[in-house]
Amino acid sequence: MTQPHTTETPFELPAGFRFAGATGGIKASGKPDVSLIVSDRPCVAAAVTTTNQVFAAPVTLCRERSPRATCRAVITNSGNANACTGKQGDADAREMGRLVAEQLGCDGEDVFVMSTGVIGHPMPMDKVRAGIESAFGQLGDRFEHFLAANDAICTTDAYRKNAAAEFSFDGKTYRIAAMCKGAGMIAPNMATMLGVVVTDFPLSDGQASTALKRIVERSFNRVSVDGHMSTNDTVILMSGGDAQSLASDEGMNVFVDAASEACLRLAKLIVADGEGAARFFEVEVTGAQSDDDALVIAKSVAASPLVKTAISGADPNWGRIVSAAGYAGPKIDVAHTSLTIEGTIVFESGQPVACDAAKLSNAMKAASEVKLSLAVGHGIGYGHYWSSDLTVDYVRFNALYTT
Amino acid sequence: MTQPHTTETPFELPAGFRFAGATGGIKASGKPDVSLIVSDRPCVAAAVTTTNQVFAAPVTLCRERSPRATCRAVITNSGNANACTGKQGDADAREMGRLVAEQLGCDGEDVFVMSTGVIGHPMPMDKVRAGIESAFGQLGDRFEHFLAANDAICTTDAYRKNAAAEFSFDGKTYRIAAMCKGAGMIAPNMATMLGVVVTDFPLSDGQASTALKRIVERSFNRVSVDGHMSTNDTVILMSGGDAQSLASDEGMNVFVDAASEACLRLAKLIVADGEGAARFFEVEVTGAQSDDDALVIAKSVAASPLVKTAISGADPNWGRIVSAAGYAGPKIDVAHTSLTIEGTIVFESGQPVACDAAKLSNAMKAASEVKLSLAVGHGIGYGHYWSSDLTVDYVRFNALYTT
Repeated sequence: MTQPHTTETPFELPAGFRFAGATGGIKASGKPDVSLIVSDRPCVAAAVTTTNQVFAAPVTLCRERSPRATCRAVITNSGNANACTGKQGDADAREMGRLVAEQLGCDGEDVFVMSTGVIGHPMPMDKVRAGIESAFGQLGDRFEHFLAANDAICTTDAYRKNAAAEFSFDGKTYRIAAMCKGAGMIAPNMATMLGVVVTDFPLSDGQASTALKRIVERSFNRVSVDGHMSTNDTVILMSGGDAQSLASDEGMNVFVDAASEACLRLAKLIVADGEGAARFFEVEVTGAQSDDDALVIAKSVAASPLVKTAISGADPNWGRIVSAAGYAGPKIDVAHTSLTIEGTIVFESGQPVACDAAKLSNAMKAASEVKLSLAVGHGIGYGHYWSSDLTVDYVRFNALYTT
Repeated sequence: MTQPHTTETPFELPAGFRFAGATGGIKASGKPDVSLIVSDRPCVAAAVTTTNQVFAAPVTLCRERSPRATCRAVITNSGNANACTGKQGDADAREMGRLVAEQLGCDGEDVFVMSTGVIGHPMPMDKVRAGIESAFGQLGDRFEHFLAANDAICTTDAYRKNAAAEFSFDGKTYRIAAMCKGAGMIAPNMATMLGVVVTDFPLSDGQASTALKRIVERSFNRVSVDGHMSTNDTVILMSGGDAQSLASDEGMNVFVDAASEACLRLAKLIVADGEGAARFFEVEVTGAQSDDDALVIAKSVAASPLVKTAISGADPNWGRIVSAAGYAGPKIDVAHTSLTIEGTIVFESGQPVACDAAKLSNAMKAASEVKLSLAVGHGIGYGHYWSSDLTVDYVRFNALYTT
């Protein structure tokens, strides 16, 4: 498969944060399973969480606590999702926050909590406790500490995922560092998507909340996985900037652009890390009646199992692509619908165009990212989605997951 | 896989119809590809067609002509979908109707047309013409003629699909005979779903239209395939009953019940004939706020690739099922959500229930149809869907389809 672009070149971290990854023994594999990010002083934090009605205990906490101007830490465990665990699960999630707060001398409410792993098993709190204790002994502000925290949130990930950005505003330079976990075919049991974005750009709690929604909409919400919204999906933004100089609207825009770009890199790494995925593709839709319509159409194509299997076979099966646009919902103008695959036009103004299918198939095989460009009329709507193919390995992997 | 229940026991056909299947050479395989059903006198006909905005030329004709009180025939070809074929495609579809009408001495508008096969290729009209001519030479009213017509609509079907029903109303006995083609994972290129229901029960054109919508809603719309609505999907109802004695509301209900039961058998045969499908499952949802909500939830579970792969692996992975209900959309009451798989309760009132997973997996393997029963609250809403699993063979089949 296309080699994922994992960022192993160290980058500068925003000042004011310390990181640690530790092993509490929650994962049977003995791999790191407790990740801790501490802000040296109270910072602003906001969370965006899953829209699934079945959500994990830590999601409840993040919702209650977001946005918050006095956040001190994010504690994450992997290996157990603390989902469908009832009242004991709620108590355990709160206890995780309390254990961290105790060490920091802050309120339990000032700690955000995330979990990822198997659903429906009680949290092994002794192991969580041991992991948190160990993590506090390893906190540091260097890149290696960031990577340790990054590793400890992973589950089925084939590689860790992080990205950074730097930008200037009003004569000052600001930094963004982001990490996430998740694999293309997001499974609710273990392949939940979790992300943390830390920055030294100053935001109010309200601004952080607004900014994070915009960032997620432009990055993680642009990748199509299998439509299965996890019980635990959460992204947290921590802003440790000087609260005396809050961002202007213009500053917000600059920050959101930079953070969205970093998060889109992460989102694409998630897609490329699909469990069993082998080929990556982008669906670009133009000419829709609105950007919203374009996105819905792009997502419909990107999520179609028949399109995904065609991409897997490097099959320029344009009928499936045009048809997936046709059932997406938004109005399309079929007589002005055209499609190019890897730059080769195969359907133009509602009519098939003869092309060398074997040659095009080879071009699809050679592409690091297969591009499908679909024009659905003369509207101004534009949108794109990224997705991975559906392979025999995906089915094999997911068929034999818990048993 | 579970042996599909193909109906090879001859059944009595409603009087007044003749059937033929012929080979025009549209399919490279040389298998039958032209199917003709003729009503001896003008009959009532109605069609339900795909909601895809990209639809084939014959779909346009069926929409224009439905409902109709003077229908004489349904002509269907397999091997070419006549979709995305522009104005020539429209002319070709009309020509198919005209050729049949010419033989019958009726108006071209009195003929309904269906096509299924590859998208985007011009219709080989010489072959279609030869097939129609040949079909007229083979028309007959015996079961073998019905089967010949049935065979000629098939494409990737592993077996032909038909069902019959007989019912009494007002002291008279009426008959329904139905045939369809389509395979579980409905692909827009060839595995379009087509169906024809013929009956001697008397209906007006308006009644036929209403009845068919109700029948399709209770049968073909209850099976979850891969969400890919084909460009050609069409179901046609032909009623050749004595137009002097139109059905009462009570008669309509009796007819719709009987026809829905026959069509649900066909729908389940389509699911079981999934391209590469190996295991069949039913999702039953109770306790939703309305029947509509229950259906949406059942469909969300039935369509989830992660649920489908879990069924493929006989994996009692209840987290995926509950989670798919959680993101379906309609309100669920998680604290009163329970799930049984093959009669074993695995999740009760929002809490996991310990069970012998290996034993349950064996029960799933042994079941001819795995049953998932999901209660999502205390509402009165009830609904169910049927689906097939997602297997390695499905991906293999669909990845290498046109090239």
